[in-house]
Amino acid sequence: MYSFDDLVRFSSKILQAAGLNEEKASVIARLFVTADAMGHDTHGLKLVAFHMPDIEDGHMLLEGEPDVLQDRGATVVWDGKRLSGVWLAQKALSLAAERAKQYGTCSIAIQRAHHTGCLEAFLPELTEQGLIAMITNSVPASKLMAPFGGLDRALSTNPFAVGIPTGDVPILIDMSCTICAGTKIMRWVDEGKKTPGYWIQDAQGNLSNDPTILFSEPKGTLLPIGGHEYGHKGYNLALMVEALTQGLSGFGGADYSEHITPGSTNGGKADLSVDRLGPVFIQVTDPEAFLGLEAFERQTKHLVDSCKNSRPINENEPVRLPGTKGYLGLKRAKEVGLELYPGIMEDIIPIAERYGVELPDPLPGT
Amino acid sequence: MYSFDDLVRFSSKILQAAGLNEEKASVIARLFVTADAMGHDTHGLKLVAFHMPDIEDGHMLLEGEPDVLQDRGATVVWDGKRLSGVWLAQKALSLAAERAKQYGTCSIAIQRAHHTGCLEAFLPELTEQGLIAMITNSVPASKLMAPFGGLDRALSTNPFAVGIPTGDVPILIDMSCTICAGTKIMRWVDEGKKTPGYWIQDAQGNLSNDPTILFSEPKGTLLPIGGHEYGHKGYNLALMVEALTQGLSGFGGADYSEHITPGSTNGGKADLSVDRLGPVFIQVTDPEAFLGLEAFERQTKHLVDSCKNSRPINENEPVRLPGTKGYLGLKRAKEVGLELYPGIMEDIIPIAERYGVELPDPLPGT
Repeated sequence: MYSFDDLVRFSSKILQAAGLNEEKASVIARLFVTADAMGHDTHGLKLVAFHMPDIEDGHMLLEGEPDVLQDRGATVVWDGKRLSGVWLAQKALSLAAERAKQYGTCSIAIQRAHHTGCLEAFLPELTEQGLIAMITNSVPASKLMAPFGGLDRALSTNPFAVGIPTGDVPILIDMSCTICAGTKIMRWVDEGKKTPGYWIQDAQGNLSNDPTILFSEPKGTLLPIGGHEYGHKGYNLALMVEALTQGLSGFGGADYSEHITPGSTNGGKADLSVDRLGPVFIQVTDPEAFLGLEAFERQTKHLVDSCKNSRPINENEPVRLPGTKGYLGLKRAKEVGLELYPGIMEDIIPIAERYGVELPDPLPGT
Repeated sequence: MYSFDDLVRFSSKILQAAGLNEEKASVIARLFVTADAMGHDTHGLKLVAFHMPDIEDGHMLLEGEPDVLQDRGATVVWDGKRLSGVWLAQKALSLAAERAKQYGTCSIAIQRAHHTGCLEAFLPELTEQGLIAMITNSVPASKLMAPFGGLDRALSTNPFAVGIPTGDVPILIDMSCTICAGTKIMRWVDEGKKTPGYWIQDAQGNLSNDPTILFSEPKGTLLPIGGHEYGHKGYNLALMVEALTQGLSGFGGADYSEHITPGSTNGGKADLSVDRLGPVFIQVTDPEAFLGLEAFERQTKHLVDSCKNSRPINENEPVRLPGTKGYLGLKRAKEVGLELYPGIMEDIIPIAERYGVELPDPLPGT
């Protein structure tokens, strides 16, 4: 078990050694450790190793600020220019929070952001200010889902997250439009496991629980929420996410099919560097601009209580609210430290050694 | 088969005879017939008979305007005062469209709206202006869904609809957070049918396809999207809809449990009239405030084409986009007329006769 702050310092030092400045590195490191603390261990410090090649070969832009392509007050568009998506999203959420307090609501679309990491990790900072926050992204070059009734990949997994203040533990939603997230699939492949349900279809459209068929030819696809029975629901959500992210940022599938990327920082040509790029859409709404935070939380608190008070189907599994586990996990990690998922520290150690960054000491007695 | 305009005139006359003024009646009638033309026959003219008791006994407020409780430009709150939800939503969408053109985005929360009818029917008018529109509502007194893992009703079906311009046929999404809509269940009960899948759980939490158990004691519940396997997804969406509608409008479950309703038009006490009331949340976004409609539609058109070009699982069922059937159905109905779902005209005839409103003539040769 490690101290939360030690892990942030440790990973920040690695990111700095690889070329990010202190401000960017510390924002990114804090969000990675937050993700681990919230239980999103596929999107926490695991990303240090995942992002490192792109940081080292320049596919992630390490320095500078996003270009402001449009700013109308309540709506903003940035070109993220391949900067860290984690850092960009955090910066955009801060701006959107400020603007939401002024206009009541603010939407920001970002084109060409590098990987955004764990979406839920951004939310507690917003809900603690009494704000409703939404963040969603798509990855046009990484399609995993076929349209409902189809065989060919046309959509990415399209995660979206929503944070809702309740006056107590917030409601934190983080879900993909596919039955499960792509990173879960990668973990099951790594661990030689089947998917818990028939959440995949093979290249002929047959249901399967074998995650390896997403990566071997002829490739299968990850099913939308609702699967073969009512997968129009997940398909609908995916279309909505792609329209908001790609349409409003002006960066998406249309650029890939035409083998160009908008903007100019990579010379207008698609290259490997765009493959992990995604457009991001952020929206922050201030209940104070409606009938006030108190009126808002009076309803959301009641909603939470109604759900919690529902008798559970299985006596030993009380009804939960989304985000409670992650939020309390984060609180506990800051107080007493956190364990990392097996293999994560082992992946980072060679990188730390290469850069001469000292490993954090495990907490005494752990 | 009837002419679209004849059906609008006919149903508007009935609504006027029952006490609504010409403006309100014609807006509501046009949206009812639009819903039928788009294939939402549970939310079209069928609602004439469904709304009539509330119109006749005063549970729907027939005259007046909503009270403006808050107006910050890009955010607005109305008290709908039990006025027709169809009329209120249409009016709010018009205002939101105007404001979105000014601010880039506009969100409007409405408390105490009577039934809003078919959400998808509102969308074409917005997408034709090149706007993205979202409309969602909940009905705090009409809970059908238990939280994921629970037995007791805590959430309504929470429909939401999103319209997305593409430069051609728009993407029109209209879905509930339960596996299917509540009105579909009512129709299957009426017709003595089972649900197409195991979309219901009984009072003990067992899966069922018998829709009657939603209405007989001990009552079952309609499952969230994802069912027993991954129903946290539908549960997440439902929480989001209830927070936006009830939280931002300041009218929701908290008012029912405390046996009061906010505002004053019904004396501050809950009564039968509130039972069909719901808060509504509307959001309109103008792509012109981002990188322009052309840049937006370049991406959404590509998205539509990618989906359509996917090989279908079943050769005879090409991949469809949500909204295409409804949009083309509406276009066709305006050109050549429409058939009504069996039983709908039969339900209206006694009402028309009671008010002395002449029935529309079927189109020649039909």
